Amino acid sequence: MHVMIIGAAGMVGRKLSERLVRDGGLGAKPVETMTLVDVITPEAPAGFDGRVVLEQADLSAAGEAERLINTRPDVIFHLAAIVSGEAERDFEKGYRINMDGMRFLLDAVRHAHDADRYYPRLVFTSSIAVFGAPLPYPISDDFHSTPLTSYGTQKAVCELLLSDYIRRGFLDGIGIRLPTICIRPGKPNAAASGFFSGILREPLVGQEAVLPVTDDIRHWHASPRSAVGFLIHGATMDLSQVGPRRALSMPGVSATVGEQIDALRRIAGDNAVKLIRREPDEMIMRMCAGWAPGFEARRARELGFTAESSFDEIIRVHIEDELGGKL
Amino acid sequence: MHVMIIGAAGMVGRKLSERLVRDGGLGAKPVETMTLVDVITPEAPAGFDGRVVLEQADLSAAGEAERLINTRPDVIFHLAAIVSGEAERDFEKGYRINMDGMRFLLDAVRHAHDADRYYPRLVFTSSIAVFGAPLPYPISDDFHSTPLTSYGTQKAVCELLLSDYIRRGFLDGIGIRLPTICIRPGKPNAAASGFFSGILREPLVGQEAVLPVTDDIRHWHASPRSAVGFLIHGATMDLSQVGPRRALSMPGVSATVGEQIDALRRIAGDNAVKLIRREPDEMIMRMCAGWAPGFEARRARELGFTAESSFDEIIRVHIEDELGGKL
Repeated sequence: MHVMIIGAAGMVGRKLSERLVRDGGLGAKPVETMTLVDVITPEAPAGFDGRVVLEQADLSAAGEAERLINTRPDVIFHLAAIVSGEAERDFEKGYRINMDGMRFLLDAVRHAHDADRYYPRLVFTSSIAVFGAPLPYPISDDFHSTPLTSYGTQKAVCELLLSDYIRRGFLDGIGIRLPTICIRPGKPNAAASGFFSGILREPLVGQEAVLPVTDDIRHWHASPRSAVGFLIHGATMDLSQVGPRRALSMPGVSATVGEQIDALRRIAGDNAVKLIRREPDEMIMRMCAGWAPGFEARRARELGFTAESSFDEIIRVHIEDELGGKL
Repeated sequence: MHVMIIGAAGMVGRKLSERLVRDGGLGAKPVETMTLVDVITPEAPAGFDGRVVLEQADLSAAGEAERLINTRPDVIFHLAAIVSGEAERDFEKGYRINMDGMRFLLDAVRHAHDADRYYPRLVFTSSIAVFGAPLPYPISDDFHSTPLTSYGTQKAVCELLLSDYIRRGFLDGIGIRLPTICIRPGKPNAAASGFFSGILREPLVGQEAVLPVTDDIRHWHASPRSAVGFLIHGATMDLSQVGPRRALSMPGVSATVGEQIDALRRIAGDNAVKLIRREPDEMIMRMCAGWAPGFEARRARELGFTAESSFDEIIRVHIEDELGGKL
């Protein structure tokens, strides 16, 4: 089969292509062709026997979606987006990349469907940012999307379009509302939510990390490995059970910052915990107060999506996948 | 002030402009200019002392939104849409008129805001079609939008855009999810929901009407007078109380078809009821089963929106407004 990953140069996109290589296919089917697309040319994953096509493309530029769809991929993972902060700073860019890009993709698929009955599966990554405060805990599957960022708005619009285009029979697919990915590998970044990973990632390798919020802040997490697992499951599951509501809140671990730190202590000891430096930041605390504390994710669990069941497990996954299995 | 009504030639648009004339203004403010816009040139309401501008314009055509916004209306009522059935038959037209039209309007306002701090109020008519089965009864204010029509999808997208553009400070405004309008004046139309009005409207003037569903079908109704009342209230209320969730399910009357008929009997007698001819239609029954049975509409009521409190009252409003006050 032919698998296309749009947004393949990002952290999740890279881990997804590596996983496809490791699995030797998608579900029971071998992957003959992998097309990796991003605004910067993605790197080919190591060790892949099939054909790799690397595409530098901006989905929101005229004709690009058609060009990509002309290759008729069987499965499309659409992970491309500009992040929340950038979508908030640059209003037009956010709508262009995060919303118009998706619509161009859907319309390119629709036109191909009209031309030759093309009927791919699209796995779209949405976000818990489609929810905006005040939020209950846990958030149920039928709670409304009232985003408080342009990014969340754009993702919520994409979810609506996805469900409608599927209902109309142009394609099949599913929308995956990713939890915050924790522990995000790599260097600290500028995202306001970066500390959720930083307070674990840095101490695990003996480095200091800054904690800008109080211990009682509760948030919703899943590992990069789980995120890739959601995407693979979305690409291989029986979609006939899903019905018309195609955007699903994924399972994850709801934890307070205090519970994160407790897990770190259990796994890496007090010396690791001592590397967390508390520097309260009023602005970050205000932002965090509006973030999703956790989800029931009942539908997703019933449909076979799985994540970690504790923060200890999230930390262990990081040690296995990023630190070679040892501290 | 300058009031613009986009979609002014429709039933609600006409009643709204007539009401503005009758009230002599909007809230406490006199209306000096009324711009009436539709794809067919609207008629000027009788008896208006101010200036009326009649515009034949398609909001989804290039440059039209800018042209309309160049006149800097203080309040914009956006009622223009193609209806559910047409949006389902003509996929591209539905998205163009119902979704792109709104986005062009919002972007024209945004550009005007950037140019000269223009900051109008936009009252947008949404629909209970943003909800899709299975639905609880009553539907709470925080129930999710999972439309089962392209029309409902387009309205749900517009609601998201409206809230985000307001949050970003480009304009102020509110989204009004209208109940099914009952009793809709005029001739029977082809809408699948037309019978809700027909089984009352026709018997009230001694004519036969067809009832294609069983008596237990429950749905959500408000009179044309209430619909106009919602719009006026949305245009005049203190929006600072509303917060960022700008799409509101309006109050209304939840009634089964049997309860509608009971109200008809109380007001017009058995002879009127006898004019209802039962011709069950499986397709219409299946469609009805997915429609919204009723709403809590708590936020809207708290914010001062009001509707009828019984079906008897809905029928009486029709007799007053359409039949000169007598049977």
